[in-house]
Parts: sequence; C-alpha cells; structure tokens
Amino acid sequence: MEKRTELSSVGEFGLIDIIKKGIVFQNPSTRVGIGDDAAVIDVGNDVLVVSKDLLAEGIHFDLSFMPLRHVGYKAVVVNISDVAAMNAVPKQILAAIALSNRFSLEAIEELYKGIRAACADYKVDLVGGDTTSSTSGLVISITAIGVAKKGNEVLRSTAQKNDILCVTGDLGGAFTGLKVMQREKEVFLTNPKMQPQLEEYEYVVGRLLKPKARMDIIYELEEMGVKPTSMIDISDGLSSEVLHISKASNLGAKLFEDKIPIDPQTILAAHEMRLDPVICALHGGDEYELLFTISPHDFEKIKNHSDIHLIGHLHDNPQQNLLITKGGNAVPLVAQGWKHF
Amino acid sequence: MEKRTELSSVGEFGLIDIIKKGIVFQNPSTRVGIGDDAAVIDVGNDVLVVSKDLLAEGIHFDLSFMPLRHVGYKAVVVNISDVAAMNAVPKQILAAIALSNRFSLEAIEELYKGIRAACADYKVDLVGGDTTSSTSGLVISITAIGVAKKGNEVLRSTAQKNDILCVTGDLGGAFTGLKVMQREKEVFLTNPKMQPQLEEYEYVVGRLLKPKARMDIIYELEEMGVKPTSMIDISDGLSSEVLHISKASNLGAKLFEDKIPIDPQTILAAHEMRLDPVICALHGGDEYELLFTISPHDFEKIKNHSDIHLIGHLHDNPQQNLLITKGGNAVPLVAQGWKHF
Repeated sequence: MEKRTELSSVGEFGLIDIIKKGIVFQNPSTRVGIGDDAAVIDVGNDVLVVSKDLLAEGIHFDLSFMPLRHVGYKAVVVNISDVAAMNAVPKQILAAIALSNRFSLEAIEELYKGIRAACADYKVDLVGGDTTSSTSGLVISITAIGVAKKGNEVLRSTAQKNDILCVTGDLGGAFTGLKVMQREKEVFLTNPKMQPQLEEYEYVVGRLLKPKARMDIIYELEEMGVKPTSMIDISDGLSSEVLHISKASNLGAKLFEDKIPIDPQTILAAHEMRLDPVICALHGGDEYELLFTISPHDFEKIKNHSDIHLIGHLHDNPQQNLLITKGGNAVPLVAQGWKHF
Repeated sequence: MEKRTELSSVGEFGLIDIIKKGIVFQNPSTRVGIGDDAAVIDVGNDVLVVSKDLLAEGIHFDLSFMPLRHVGYKAVVVNISDVAAMNAVPKQILAAIALSNRFSLEAIEELYKGIRAACADYKVDLVGGDTTSSTSGLVISITAIGVAKKGNEVLRSTAQKNDILCVTGDLGGAFTGLKVMQREKEVFLTNPKMQPQLEEYEYVVGRLLKPKARMDIIYELEEMGVKPTSMIDISDGLSSEVLHISKASNLGAKLFEDKIPIDPQTILAAHEMRLDPVICALHGGDEYELLFTISPHDFEKIKNHSDIHLIGHLHDNPQQNLLITKGGNAVPLVAQGWKHF
C-alpha cells in the first residue's frame, strides 16, 4: 500500500522545508530563494525582490462579508507588504485569477477595481497575469516586483545579538475583526433580518478588510538613516514572526508583553468578544505591520517615532525564545499563527 | 436590480481588454504590460520578462489521467514557453499552490518533483512562492522570470508586412491526445477492468502530458543570426495565435493549409478518433510550439531548418486574415481556441 502522510502532520513550515530541500541554484543572478518574504534577484546595480502569494476563497477570505473590491485590494497589499519587508520599493504586479461562472463580469470588474485602487495607492503597475475559470471558488495569485539598491535589501537572517526588536502600528485588530465578522455572519444566518451592529467594531473590522502595507515606514527609516538589520512582515502573528527572525539569524529573542502595541479599540472589542487582546496580538495574523531589528547604535534615531514600538531584543542563545509577561514571568514563545492544513 | 453580464458573453480576450483598459503606467521601468506573452521590465542593460499562468484542476488538467508529477512539470513548461516567446532566457520561477487536504504529503512531493525536474531541464531556479489550502481542487500558479539584452526582446506587435510566418515542431498532437485520454477515461468509468490501449497513441498523449518549451529554437535562432520580428507561443491554437500577431501588428495574415506541420502519428490518431487533423492543428491548444515572423531577408538563413516551417506571410490589409485551403480556396481565419467561460 502506498504511504500516506497527512499534510497536517508536517504543517505549513514543515512543508516549506521539504519543498526547499535539495535546491541548488544554477543562476548567479539568484541571490535569495525560498524562505524569506520575497526572492532576491541580482540585476546589476539593483536587486529585484519578487513575492508571490495566493488567496483562496473560503480560506483567506469569506465573500459573505468581504466585498470583492476589498479582496482585490487586499491581495495586492499582502504582496506589497512582502516587498516592504525586504526594504524594497514595489514597482509592478501581475495578477492571476481563477473563478467559476457563478461570478459575473460586474463581479470581476469590482475585483479589478480593488486591484487597481491598490496599484494607484502604492504607485505600482499592473503588468500581466492570467484570467481563467475554476470549478468552484475564487482564487487570486499576485506576484509583486520591487526594487532596491544592491545591498539595501533586508533579509530575515541577518539580525545580530543585542539588536532591538521593533514593530510598527498596533496588533491584534485584524484577528479580533475576523471574530466579530464571523459572529455577525452566524447571527445573520440564524436571523437574516438582523442588521449587523458594526459601529463600535469599525476599527478592528477595518484592520481586517482594509489592511495597509507599511511603505510609509520604509521611506521614513531611509530618511532617518536607519537600515534594519533584519525584517519580516506580520502575516502569521507576532510570535511566529519573531521566531522566524531569531531562528533564521541563529539567535534567541526576548519579547516584553507590556511593550506590545495594542489599540484601545482592539482591547475593547476583544474584551466584548471574550478574547484576550494579548493572545490576539501574539497569534493573530493578517496584520501586515513590519517587525524588524535595529542595531543598538540606531536607538537614539528611532526612539521617539510614534508608530515604531520597541518590544524586545535578541541574544545569542538560540534555544531561548521568551515572552516576559506583565507579571515578570518568562514563558517560552511559541509559533501558533495560521494553520493551513 | 443589479446588472449581471455573463463572462461567457465577453470571452477570455474580451475580459483581458476590459482589465487592461485605462491602465496608465506610473513607473518608467515598466516597458510592456498586459497583452503579450509576458511583461517586460527595464533593469539597466537588460530587460526582465515576467510571465504568470494559473492552472486549475478540472479546467487545465484532469488528475484521473495526468499524474501529479506531470502537472508540476507542465505548469513550469507553460511559463517557460511564455518567456521563450519573448526571445528571453528563463532564470527563476516562483510557484504558488493551493490544495485541499485530500492531497497527502507524498502527493505534494510528486508535484514538486515535476516542478524541480522542469527547473533542472531548463536550468531555472525555484526561488519562492506560497503553499496554502483550498476548499476543493488543486490550483497552481507559476511566475517565470527571464532575461534578455535590452532590444532583444520580441513582442507580438512588431511584425512588418511581407514578413514570413514560421512555426516550430508540429501541431494538433496535444488536442488529439486529450481526446484519446478523455475516451479512455470514459471507457474506464464504464468498465474499470478495461486496460487503456495507449501504445498507438503514445506520440499524441506525450504531446499532451509532457510538453516542451522550445528554448532550443531560441538558442538556434540566435546562432543563425535571426531575430524574429514578432513571436508568440501556441497555447490557444495556431489560428488564434496568428490572429494575435496580425491584430497586434495592425496587419493581415495569409496562412497555407498545406504548409501546416502535422506529424503522421497525429494524422493517424486523429483519423481513428474521427477528428480532422487540420482542425486539431488550427484550433487545438496546449502545444507550446513557437509562432514567429521573420523578415524576408532572413529567409535564406532559415529555409533549411528541419524543425521550422514556413506557413504563410503577413500583408498590409488588417481586415483580411485568410486560410488558403489545399483546394486553393480562401476562407477567413477564425479564433476558436479555448473557451474558458
């Protein structure tokens, strides 16, 4: 009998390890391959960074509460966020769409309106792709291409010990927003006449439906003369991303619970949903804030930035990745994040 | 009531026109966008060409007769063929896969074995992508990146009047192979004990399951000192692709039926399947041969090449795209190709 190993037994990151095993690059222009936010390709004085993500209906978005225009917009943002996390500037995208005939032309136009709006906001050109049918749901795959001066690209694997862990914006909102929308959907399915009550959840729902890629931070860091020593974007949850950086850099991380930025509106919404906002911030994905490390020498330049939060530091024991709780306890940092399989 | 226009009423090419309408490029590095085999991006002395295709289970492949390893291989080849059709050399690919939990780890490894085998055959590096779950079938999106010296890229839109239409290899095999496999599948579904009889159809089935991208022709043309004046790969059928070139170049085309290369094994198999081999060659897609035009001045260089066939020429009346039949009749050339919607 043939062997059958369930994908759930290896998980997403295990699967990535299996896929990249044994790959030997044949082209000198290939600088960085699988395992960072984007690939890095040498093109002379510059490098190109290329990211590719796939969003599937029913997994990454629920069309019952996410308008198609938002789906298109978000699909682009997710990829631009990967380009930002390489310290590069996005320039072009390609979009491949598979959809069944339950979608009308008007629906596709809505989707592309969202894609075009994101292109306009981030000044990128839609240059290609593919539009085809599928037997069931909607699938969108975006490729984003960005450019950086050679040597300016920032990987996950280049943090140094004593570097300071920084995160932008605030966390936990998108996950809380998802839980709010899922609750409203259940209420609606039970009683279709109920109108959704979303006013007080506007902030967290916005975090879910209209995410931003933090290109503003990339430009500001350059202006401040700060080059991060490592960087990643938060798609799978803060905890998981901190561990990506510490593991890739062969270091350990110490993260302080009381430093994790959480918006008051997220805290309120999370409490009403009976969720712990810190858990939402640590393990909720879909945030697209940037997590990066800076050299302690750059501390003075960055310490007064209102939207960059210093949340911990790296040290030289790769076995020790800790969360220091508000009560002063040290607990191991674990990667929960999204489970795809 | 909201307006609902069925996608079938605009078709794939109509949809592409709608998507690209109103796009104004914001980045000077964007040279060519939607509407060719691949996008062209300026990176200094070179240009990069970037193609992106999406293959969906049940639409582009049927896992009941196409092994996963072949699906992975073919997904790469399809994109490399797009890079070849721009007169560029493929260097990197990214692969995004969505799949349901009915697939095991072993199944995914088979898929990636195919992807890696194609990477090895065409000397390209797998540098990134995404692996995620789907609610139903398997979807694969590949992005291929190639490089050409600036000015060496070849578009669809640059053919000149009196240029000679050339096609590589032979046509009609993949479509005939598909019909054979579909018949065998029906026989199997009716009587699962029947063994498929495929020996005599080996060639056409191979054309379907193991397509090649014609990078060999790209290298040979360079050696012969021939730069095509326009080029496209045959994914939707010869007739449709000839019309792409003539329309994009604002010219007309004349194609001679008796010059269309069809392998004797395709003719035999088509006759047994009660198909007209010329119709298979004109309208069957999935071939991945190259269709290109050359200047009449290059005729002498190319005329004795055993695998390049001169099948017609271009003229300056865009309203007249004709097939000259074996009997000497002129019939309008029509784009049938694949219907996705």
